[in-house]
Amino acid sequence: MSIPSDLPARLAEALGPSAVITEGPDLEPYAVDWRKLFPGRPACVVRPSSTDQVVRIVHICREAGASIVPQGGNTGLAGGAVPDASGTQIVLSLTRMAAVRELDAVGMTIEAEAGCILKVAQDAAAAVGRLLPISLAAEGSATIGGVVAANAGGVNVLRYGMTRNLVLGLEVVLPDGTLANGLRRLRKDNAGYDWKQLFIGSEGTLGIVTAAVLRLVPRPKHSVTALLSVTDPDAALRLLALAQDDLGDQISAFELISGTSLQLVAKHAGLKAPIAEGEWFVLIEAASSLAGLREAAETMLGAAFEREIALDGVIAESGAQAAQLWALREHVTESEAREGKSVKHDVSVPLTAVPRFLAEAGKTLAAGVPGTRVNAFGHLGDGNIHYNVLVDEGHDAAIVNRIVHDAVAAHGGSISAEHGIGQYRVGELVRYRSGAEMTLARKLKRTLDPGGLLNPGKVLSP
Amino acid sequence: MSIPSDLPARLAEALGPSAVITEGPDLEPYAVDWRKLFPGRPACVVRPSSTDQVVRIVHICREAGASIVPQGGNTGLAGGAVPDASGTQIVLSLTRMAAVRELDAVGMTIEAEAGCILKVAQDAAAAVGRLLPISLAAEGSATIGGVVAANAGGVNVLRYGMTRNLVLGLEVVLPDGTLANGLRRLRKDNAGYDWKQLFIGSEGTLGIVTAAVLRLVPRPKHSVTALLSVTDPDAALRLLALAQDDLGDQISAFELISGTSLQLVAKHAGLKAPIAEGEWFVLIEAASSLAGLREAAETMLGAAFEREIALDGVIAESGAQAAQLWALREHVTESEAREGKSVKHDVSVPLTAVPRFLAEAGKTLAAGVPGTRVNAFGHLGDGNIHYNVLVDEGHDAAIVNRIVHDAVAAHGGSISAEHGIGQYRVGELVRYRSGAEMTLARKLKRTLDPGGLLNPGKVLSP
Repeated sequence: MSIPSDLPARLAEALGPSAVITEGPDLEPYAVDWRKLFPGRPACVVRPSSTDQVVRIVHICREAGASIVPQGGNTGLAGGAVPDASGTQIVLSLTRMAAVRELDAVGMTIEAEAGCILKVAQDAAAAVGRLLPISLAAEGSATIGGVVAANAGGVNVLRYGMTRNLVLGLEVVLPDGTLANGLRRLRKDNAGYDWKQLFIGSEGTLGIVTAAVLRLVPRPKHSVTALLSVTDPDAALRLLALAQDDLGDQISAFELISGTSLQLVAKHAGLKAPIAEGEWFVLIEAASSLAGLREAAETMLGAAFEREIALDGVIAESGAQAAQLWALREHVTESEAREGKSVKHDVSVPLTAVPRFLAEAGKTLAAGVPGTRVNAFGHLGDGNIHYNVLVDEGHDAAIVNRIVHDAVAAHGGSISAEHGIGQYRVGELVRYRSGAEMTLARKLKRTLDPGGLLNPGKVLSP
Repeated sequence: MSIPSDLPARLAEALGPSAVITEGPDLEPYAVDWRKLFPGRPACVVRPSSTDQVVRIVHICREAGASIVPQGGNTGLAGGAVPDASGTQIVLSLTRMAAVRELDAVGMTIEAEAGCILKVAQDAAAAVGRLLPISLAAEGSATIGGVVAANAGGVNVLRYGMTRNLVLGLEVVLPDGTLANGLRRLRKDNAGYDWKQLFIGSEGTLGIVTAAVLRLVPRPKHSVTALLSVTDPDAALRLLALAQDDLGDQISAFELISGTSLQLVAKHAGLKAPIAEGEWFVLIEAASSLAGLREAAETMLGAAFEREIALDGVIAESGAQAAQLWALREHVTESEAREGKSVKHDVSVPLTAVPRFLAEAGKTLAAGVPGTRVNAFGHLGDGNIHYNVLVDEGHDAAIVNRIVHDAVAAHGGSISAEHGIGQYRVGELVRYRSGAEMTLARKLKRTLDPGGLLNPGKVLSP
């Protein structure tokens, strides 16, 4: 496949020379993901400053037969926003479209352009006393368009749901150059098909998200953080049920951390849990507009000890102590990296299947790939486990992936809870999703993008 | 268009004679909606008892060239679940598929077949201490399949969102007879396109929902109900902002009721508000697992009086008093019917546009259709207003609709907040949605149902 050699010039003519990057060190950050796992080579990078310019780019690229890779903050973990190495794909970076267009504290909505940094949108909401409850490690670089296209998760999913649950309206440029404007600020709208759902989480393969209206929520005034040790994941589930009884939907995080994880954190980050050692730990955070949260948390902890669900535990006495407890969780990934190589998985299973999944995957791995160690941790409240396997040099990642993902499938789970498919998991998606679902997905892709203009090879094989 | 005269016999042969109704009084409840506004005449009614039977019905009808109207509890308000009068359409009633298949109190999920009555599913959840937070007037007859197909709203939307926000998994029979099984019980799943979204809220025009996995939530232990009077809808919005500050996301209902509405309730139902008369009223309900809710509500009310946002107000002292306050709201529709004829609208606008919408629509109506009276009430917390216009005999409903819906459109609103389009609003949808959105909707319909097998003439013109 080839494209006209003057395509960058045509784009520069239409959008102005500063909108197009064709070579040099400025090109690099757009060509490869930030972990440098998926190096690509674009024909050029084009940076529109308006939705109208995005429409023009689509028309120009269609005419030239060049495909487009939409890109936001380029913080994805599955290579979904970088071009292939053919030199024929255009990276369309939305980062110049970064405005917060509208903010409504009473109606609790924010309208932002696709290139608006998530942190900027969070801060804008906070400035009017509201919360944009999408919180990710990459929030300082990730953009609203990317967050929507990836249906981002993060640490608030248990309480507020994935990004999809917060999207009220979308503006999307379709592969045929049509602008679909659904930038409504409505909490209820059953007038016709809710077509915007198609573009949320489809990773830029069906349309280019240029702006979004997101729902805001009230900002809680009180919060409480606790760390508890439990004998096993089953006890962690019993603790979750107890917490749901006593704290209701004010629980904002319920994180499971393995003893192995905390041993790694102690070894490499020098941080130690302020409670007795154990096999498994649970970090709970709850937040509320109501006073009485702490009392409810203390009652819950008392019941957990009395019923022998928890072995030991502590409630943070201050914001600083809460931060110390969170630091244990936040240093797991980095400490794992210092320990050595690992094969990572971002999987989910039904909550109540988590203990069986952990037991069975561990057993099969020990038998199939001797010498590996499992570093499991994650969002138990969402059934989302980061199941990372520490391996020796010269390991076979494919075998480890197969064992873990087969165990996930056996429990009705997902091989990608929040990171998406991108280019990384395209082959595995075909293995684990039914033929009927894949046929339906391909049909949708062909309908909206019959020419394969947008992000070819991502999510679905070309 | 005609169909083979032996089609009912073919269906009876495949499914057993008791599964097919061809005539007599048993047919009537399936042929017309419960309000008897949309009378139809089906070729026959077929009542499968399994997903496999639904697949067989689709194949038989495809071959015969007969279209299928899926139907649940037949409680819709827009004629979306009844056949036309041609005698060539088959009603496929899901009511024999009524099982709760699985219930998980810790994982907080319920899996139910399409014909399961909403109330049955609510009760099943309550029996294990959890809440299925979809609550509608028709909950004793509406079915899970219909609730999903209609993306039902109800009184809990402010807190828990529409039905879409609660659907974790779906099983759908497609118009080509394919069974798409996405009955996953996952809170996070970004593996490929989330195709189930297409079928939620598409009113049986794209596929037949045969089962669903819904998310449950913790059951709040404490609740508080208050009624306040305010000078105007602007003050009601200021009260909402205050309530969001003080009660956070524990607010489960925030209902606006006009003075006219309460006058009708006093006149026809003999119920009187226990506070001073006023132009506008707000009914607030909040619920929480935490104690301290009532104190927070009292603080909020105190501030509302101090800042002169509210004129008068009362907090219910008991469950019985709370029920009395709710009775005022619940008798509005019935009292309106006793007063005389009305033209009803189920509209939404951005929350902060509600006061302007009410003022402008009222003014235009007074000028355009003299002698009408407006009975406005609804879910202010969702921007969803039931804007009903009391008219004389011999009125022109089309003119009233046009004025109200034009005002809705002018404020970026929706002509159907929760009732859907059905057959009732097909023409108006075309008027108020952009060409790009309608083209996209038709493209999706053609892709999934090229033969127009499912529910023709609903949502989109055939």
